Amino acid sequence: MAKTDKPVARSYFAAIAAFNAGTDTPRAFLERCIETIEALEPQVGAFVATNLPGARAAADAASQRWNVGRALSPIDGMPVGIKDIMETADMVTEQGSPLFKGWKGPRDAAAVIALREAGAVVVGKTVTTEFASIEPRGTKNPWDLARTPGGSSSGSAAAVAAGMLPAALGTQVVGSTVRPASFCGCFGYKPSVGGINRGGSYDEFSQSCTGMIAASLAETWTVARVIASRAGGDPGYTGITGPIELPAAKPPRRVAMLDTAGWPRASEEAKRQLAEARARLAAAGIEVADRKTDKAIDAVETAIASAGPLSMDINAWEGRWPLNTYARDMDRNGLSKSAQNRLAQAEAMTQEQYQGLIAERDRVRKIYAALADRYDVCVTLPATGAAPIGLGSTGDPIFVVPSSLLGTPSMTLPVLQAEGLPLGLQLMGFQNADAAMFASAAAVLRLFDIKP
Amino acid sequence: MAKTDKPVARSYFAAIAAFNAGTDTPRAFLERCIETIEALEPQVGAFVATNLPGARAAADAASQRWNVGRALSPIDGMPVGIKDIMETADMVTEQGSPLFKGWKGPRDAAAVIALREAGAVVVGKTVTTEFASIEPRGTKNPWDLARTPGGSSSGSAAAVAAGMLPAALGTQVVGSTVRPASFCGCFGYKPSVGGINRGGSYDEFSQSCTGMIAASLAETWTVARVIASRAGGDPGYTGITGPIELPAAKPPRRVAMLDTAGWPRASEEAKRQLAEARARLAAAGIEVADRKTDKAIDAVETAIASAGPLSMDINAWEGRWPLNTYARDMDRNGLSKSAQNRLAQAEAMTQEQYQGLIAERDRVRKIYAALADRYDVCVTLPATGAAPIGLGSTGDPIFVVPSSLLGTPSMTLPVLQAEGLPLGLQLMGFQNADAAMFASAAAVLRLFDIKP
Repeated sequence: MAKTDKPVARSYFAAIAAFNAGTDTPRAFLERCIETIEALEPQVGAFVATNLPGARAAADAASQRWNVGRALSPIDGMPVGIKDIMETADMVTEQGSPLFKGWKGPRDAAAVIALREAGAVVVGKTVTTEFASIEPRGTKNPWDLARTPGGSSSGSAAAVAAGMLPAALGTQVVGSTVRPASFCGCFGYKPSVGGINRGGSYDEFSQSCTGMIAASLAETWTVARVIASRAGGDPGYTGITGPIELPAAKPPRRVAMLDTAGWPRASEEAKRQLAEARARLAAAGIEVADRKTDKAIDAVETAIASAGPLSMDINAWEGRWPLNTYARDMDRNGLSKSAQNRLAQAEAMTQEQYQGLIAERDRVRKIYAALADRYDVCVTLPATGAAPIGLGSTGDPIFVVPSSLLGTPSMTLPVLQAEGLPLGLQLMGFQNADAAMFASAAAVLRLFDIKP
Repeated sequence: MAKTDKPVARSYFAAIAAFNAGTDTPRAFLERCIETIEALEPQVGAFVATNLPGARAAADAASQRWNVGRALSPIDGMPVGIKDIMETADMVTEQGSPLFKGWKGPRDAAAVIALREAGAVVVGKTVTTEFASIEPRGTKNPWDLARTPGGSSSGSAAAVAAGMLPAALGTQVVGSTVRPASFCGCFGYKPSVGGINRGGSYDEFSQSCTGMIAASLAETWTVARVIASRAGGDPGYTGITGPIELPAAKPPRRVAMLDTAGWPRASEEAKRQLAEARARLAAAGIEVADRKTDKAIDAVETAIASAGPLSMDINAWEGRWPLNTYARDMDRNGLSKSAQNRLAQAEAMTQEQYQGLIAERDRVRKIYAALADRYDVCVTLPATGAAPIGLGSTGDPIFVVPSSLLGTPSMTLPVLQAEGLPLGLQLMGFQNADAAMFASAAAVLRLFDIKP
């Protein structure tokens, strides 16, 4: 696969008309996915494990349901991938760590069983960095095998980009869903904090959220919404609400453009691309503001300027367990150097420091929340540019960490380019207003002549 | 052991002077605990598993530290029990379920490793009801072997009451710490929601909280505080703050007496006991009010009247996972009938219903929180009376469910009696003001001439 062979994402929703017409079936769709997996997986390395017999049986059952007009949900029969940080009853859950090589729990994560209840076909476990943090595990970007797919949801993004699967679950505590989606030219969505039940997902950070990487905007929304309707949000949170189908496009009246702390690191090409996107919004009659034109936006820019270090400190304290027991009760040398460093940082922290950190986070969240009075959505880049060359790092999360810190929904639309490779356009919404963000996104997507 | 052989709890703090004087050691203390375990465990059934070689090695290390004046913490060397809903690297974690018979994870729960870091000696896993819910697993009340010790922290309460251990971890989502502590004549403490990191504890309910059952008030506080200082609270929560040592006694100026929905079910003897306790507070110059004398208290009584059914509905939805995957991927018949019923209830619920339930809980919490302006602490019974006869039920949680719903700290002091058996006095504090509740408790305890 040379750099110029553009990978093509494979939409499941695009096939539904044929299911209804009887000219295609979920089983046949699955077989096309499996063909692509067999062709590309040796180079891309998106999977930790697959269960193809199980997937074929599930696809057959879905085919029968579509055949008699009794689909369990809009995603009945959809082949999906599960980030290998989440438990699956039929496959290993290795968390990207040699400490968990071959480890298998007896159960499905909450989001996984919800997918199965809705008829989705769980094809395999997708590669995650070590413990969904920064240590890459070899997955390559289908757009250019010399480049990272991003992380930590590396395998999910690569599998969707390559057309192996129409959708896959990710998680994000810093930039682990939206960043790889941007690098791989997929749609990516991080819900409001608490938006999808994380039971059985090994990422117990206060900012962490289960999210979606998919081939179309409609699938991105509907898969997430179908899960939340069955599994709910995290305990104590309602979870994502709104229609099961993609919310109707509603052009935002006012958009806040954010630089974030990433601006000085963005490539000139990426900046030009964002400027063109901004011009496109303005040309469509959308009022576009920024820190120079609105003090409230300037206050947000100032407040989120340290989103990166603040998030890293919060995550260090919250990640002390289980790294401390892995180091003591399993094998310290089975932790990467970066994990050992995070543990050392955590060991030097105090509860009082953490108290200060989450108080600061609360302060930043309040400043951002005030923007909701005036703006429908915020827009920025999701990355400094195209996926960087090399597989040793998953890239810079500086543009995506703000929404993780804020607990707000965010997403990337694959509408920009850099170096001839994909670059997304990031939308950031407001807490628990995920459906409204998708209504804006559907309208923005139209401006780029891309189907939802 | 006849009903008249009163069990005697064993305080570790009471031995510390002798450790410092060189006339006793943590190892010798542990051996006394083990003697009691060997004598009484066959009748009481408090443990699922023990690791006595590991405990002896840890106690020896602690003895050396005390000997040179280098104790790691005030609980260095303290023998403790871990409710078998929490992972331990050296022992099984069976969750009171045949589905997890012999199951062992590779790691310690966050609270467990924090205990070990503080030098505590983890002696064993204490019996829990099935999944910390209602199905009892045979533990008997050391005060009367024909009676329940309460649940779900059955083994922790029984072990502390019998003098097998000075302290043990519990959890509470309805009444699972304070109720068994009352039935067994122990101190019991449920922190503010989020107060102790639940990482590795299999009770992922929004109301659930890791708590303490112990032989003295000081141990109850210090064990909890030592854990929180190392493991923090749940992600996003600071966790319990305040001094490591028991907060200095501070007599409450004003106390709100609550009936709760339990009043009509309380025994006449229990009511008389509470009336006497109230008189004792009043005689000490504390202003005591109730729903008849203060409309704000009446509003609270009305708001918490349905705490039981509201909690059960919230827990049903939140408990759908993992019961659904246990039933499908493990063995439905390995679930108790009550667990199957909870799952059936959950399967019939919707995300929208849950949204309504947590909105109602928020409403109730706000009404209760307003009491903090006027009262230092609320006081009520922790149970309808003494532990009921029979081992088929863990007793009525009606008096303890309000603080679970409210997310506030609560505790029981073993100062009352019924049927010649223990009955506690429940104190309910205000969210994140756990230390203030203990300062009140220390003062109340003095009124009963009991050492903290």
